[in-house]
Amino acid sequence: MIIARSRFTGAAGRSMIRSRNIMSSVQYVTRCHYTTSFEPAPKLTIHEISPQTVEAEYAVRGKIPIIAEGLQDLIKKNPTDHGLPFNKIINANIGNPQQLDQKPLTWYRQVMSLLEYPKLLDEPALKFPQDVKKRAKLILDNVGSIGAYSHSQGAPFFRQSIAEFITKRDGGLLPANANNIFLTAGASTAVSYLLEILSQDEHSGFLIPIPQYPLYTATITLNKAKPVGYYLDESNHWSTNPSEIRQLIKENKKKGINIKALVVINPGNPTGAVLSHEDIHKLIDICAEHGIVLIADEVYQENVFHGKDFISFKRVLGELIQKRPDLYKNVQLASLHSTSKGVSGECGQRGGYMELVGFREEVKDIIFKLASINLCSVVSGQAMVELMINPPKKGDESYELYKKETSGIFDDLKERAKYLYEAFKEMEDVTADPPQGAMYIFPKLDFKPAQYHKLYSRAKNSSLLIDDIYCIELLEHTGICCVPGNGFGQKPGTYHLRTTFLPPGKEWVERWTEFHHLFVNKYKDGTFCA
Amino acid sequence: MIIARSRFTGAAGRSMIRSRNIMSSVQYVTRCHYTTSFEPAPKLTIHEISPQTVEAEYAVRGKIPIIAEGLQDLIKKNPTDHGLPFNKIINANIGNPQQLDQKPLTWYRQVMSLLEYPKLLDEPALKFPQDVKKRAKLILDNVGSIGAYSHSQGAPFFRQSIAEFITKRDGGLLPANANNIFLTAGASTAVSYLLEILSQDEHSGFLIPIPQYPLYTATITLNKAKPVGYYLDESNHWSTNPSEIRQLIKENKKKGINIKALVVINPGNPTGAVLSHEDIHKLIDICAEHGIVLIADEVYQENVFHGKDFISFKRVLGELIQKRPDLYKNVQLASLHSTSKGVSGECGQRGGYMELVGFREEVKDIIFKLASINLCSVVSGQAMVELMINPPKKGDESYELYKKETSGIFDDLKERAKYLYEAFKEMEDVTADPPQGAMYIFPKLDFKPAQYHKLYSRAKNSSLLIDDIYCIELLEHTGICCVPGNGFGQKPGTYHLRTTFLPPGKEWVERWTEFHHLFVNKYKDGTFCA
Repeated sequence: MIIARSRFTGAAGRSMIRSRNIMSSVQYVTRCHYTTSFEPAPKLTIHEISPQTVEAEYAVRGKIPIIAEGLQDLIKKNPTDHGLPFNKIINANIGNPQQLDQKPLTWYRQVMSLLEYPKLLDEPALKFPQDVKKRAKLILDNVGSIGAYSHSQGAPFFRQSIAEFITKRDGGLLPANANNIFLTAGASTAVSYLLEILSQDEHSGFLIPIPQYPLYTATITLNKAKPVGYYLDESNHWSTNPSEIRQLIKENKKKGINIKALVVINPGNPTGAVLSHEDIHKLIDICAEHGIVLIADEVYQENVFHGKDFISFKRVLGELIQKRPDLYKNVQLASLHSTSKGVSGECGQRGGYMELVGFREEVKDIIFKLASINLCSVVSGQAMVELMINPPKKGDESYELYKKETSGIFDDLKERAKYLYEAFKEMEDVTADPPQGAMYIFPKLDFKPAQYHKLYSRAKNSSLLIDDIYCIELLEHTGICCVPGNGFGQKPGTYHLRTTFLPPGKEWVERWTEFHHLFVNKYKDGTFCA
Repeated sequence: MIIARSRFTGAAGRSMIRSRNIMSSVQYVTRCHYTTSFEPAPKLTIHEISPQTVEAEYAVRGKIPIIAEGLQDLIKKNPTDHGLPFNKIINANIGNPQQLDQKPLTWYRQVMSLLEYPKLLDEPALKFPQDVKKRAKLILDNVGSIGAYSHSQGAPFFRQSIAEFITKRDGGLLPANANNIFLTAGASTAVSYLLEILSQDEHSGFLIPIPQYPLYTATITLNKAKPVGYYLDESNHWSTNPSEIRQLIKENKKKGINIKALVVINPGNPTGAVLSHEDIHKLIDICAEHGIVLIADEVYQENVFHGKDFISFKRVLGELIQKRPDLYKNVQLASLHSTSKGVSGECGQRGGYMELVGFREEVKDIIFKLASINLCSVVSGQAMVELMINPPKKGDESYELYKKETSGIFDDLKERAKYLYEAFKEMEDVTADPPQGAMYIFPKLDFKPAQYHKLYSRAKNSSLLIDDIYCIELLEHTGICCVPGNGFGQKPGTYHLRTTFLPPGKEWVERWTEFHHLFVNKYKDGTFCA
């Protein structure tokens, strides 16, 4: 901007000022050769900063992805001479569809281009569908420039639209209110606000599923609170176990840990499980009885396959309140959604929302204050949420293309999920649950110690776990980057990995199968291999 | 998305599933009429949540703006019959140019529209300048879809570009490195990361200017650390006083407070002051001697008027390191910039960056981890930073228009600043410093207790301070919303207010002058009015 600014203050005035400054700086620096005398202090070490920021762990972008990044750099710098047995990294560590081959939806991006440059609306040569132009105009009329800060909760127009979407989605039993909606940067900011306000002190506990998305443990650690893991039941399609959760609340109370919230990820990350109506009802009961906030991470609500149906916590809560308001009227539910997943896959646009149900105004005000300190979430991301929840309708000019694109993405994901799952089913000493939803499979590496002496002894002699070793070798041999199960939590003595099923093509899956065969051959005891 | 999803699972299958779900839900709910029995727990109160989230204060969107919002709603709902002496709120409480009349720069928005919908590049009818198309292509080729998560520090391409901008801006003495750049959502996220990692425990202190931008005190409170205010010298154009700062470090050390960072806002918010080379040198000396991190909030670096020149902390540090590496090599500087201010005013796009200089790798890794937990900053905002720091050059097709638009905005802001300042100069019992930079004036309400008995007695009988009363009455009489000085901090017994000079036109300033006259007449003791 130096070029830009030099015009403003006038060239003559400026050069005078500049020479004065440079002069004074030189004199000053020269002077301080003689006058400045102090003992310079050393730099900060990690022992002098916040210990909880040092302690927090986030595996999705943790050690394996960092090695992968290094390999990617190596390939980039030496495209023909990198010495690796593959030519690119397959990023299966993160649900980031547009980093791979997923194309953005035309509907989203046409409206967004008009919001960025509204003068395109007056361009007669531009053949955008009428409903695209109409929606862009509607947003611009109601929200104004996307370059202005919005209300800290998000522009009222978007919040109203989201409230209507939720009410319709959930059958209208418990209508949503725009004042309870907060637009957020993906779902991550919502998690951060909720865990921050609910961390009363170091005795505050949060029930989180094991395995879980590590944003939760990381944020709980940052807030010096206690993560209290409840196991998802691998033998029962990774479903929740309400009696175990009740037991944990009781046990923790005895230990002085006050459970503040129950986190549920549905559809599950990393498990891909989808909860039933009964599961949801039982979890709400627990929260109603114990005054625990229910955090429903429902960002994968569009990613549901295989005959399952997504049921929102809000819908079930609405039914329960209608039947028994006396029992359920105090339930405090925060439910999260995002434009990053679903068939949108607009991760980089950072759109998302949180609905708060049943919170006291005084508590909601505190969340509002946190949102205010951050001013507002990105307004283009807010618009993206509007486009996601309020897509073209039958009869609209964009509808057919929108339908074709979304169906294409959905069917493709379903097929990729199936293909990868079938591959895991065939792999020796691997078990996997059929994917029901989300973007992940969380197969179990069923390497019994009695059969894999070499593997367990290698683990024993290093700081690595069985799943770390598997993921590192997978990466080194195939370029496939996924995340060891220990990054998400797993029952002691069990080992898993999380992989997305997003990468295109079948070749990478075949390479994985080949690698797996070699891995088993390398580490499984000869006597059992015969 | 219900419409969208219903196609995917097949209508027949789906309606079967749906009826099964509805059936089971009804049965289940009905059953729980009889079997569910528990005592419902009450809702959370603010006494059961994090006390520091309750305690944190953020005046920029605090009580006065909240009253203003209520009045705005009233006007909207009753446009002809609202009973107020004005028809709209003048938002002078926040630097939000595009909420007022500032138009986005064509250069930014044309490139952004192409990034959102790259197919426009193939539209022969679209007459965008060649350099706009070229830049969009360059970004798309290097970064890919803006709908994908980027590297958590920001896309390497943008970081490289920012590093080159800084190196050039600062004369190249201490070249910037792309690995030290973090793209952030405005500057707020950068502040949040820095204060979070530097808050080692409750004995960690942060030197912040008084008056300050309240993001700092709010974030320090959230991190349970101690804000240690150093006064800016109102009698000397709000400059810094190094000996006072040194004294504070000493005093606080004695009290067991370990100063972790010195925050400097230059150009100043809310004061509008611009630091000299000598000021900056002296502040760097303090940090070098005491091993204190220097946080330079330089988001207003383009907003510098009246013969002053912006000098970055990085530039001065580079000069000092060149002369005396032994003394300055350990200085840890974090400098922040944003697309929200300057002539960009793209607040809603949430673009910003932070450069870290001199930090140990191990500490930078922790900041990287925090960034990873949030995945990445919005990628369109990252692109906006690139467009800001790398604008059209002379000879580029966009250059003339870019120059015209940026000059227009800059000159306009300068003129508005001057007009408002002149008005304050004329107001009875108000003093103001000539605006040097930023977007604000911070006039002093010089209402002496001996002359304003009625005013001080009103304050005494309420929970309001003098500046609160003034701002509330200003809002109620004119619709002008600004922020009382107590929201930023001020010397005890002094009262100020912060107003932006962004609102267009002169009429609002005239209304303010009129109001001020009435206010003085109402509260100033008659004997002194004669």
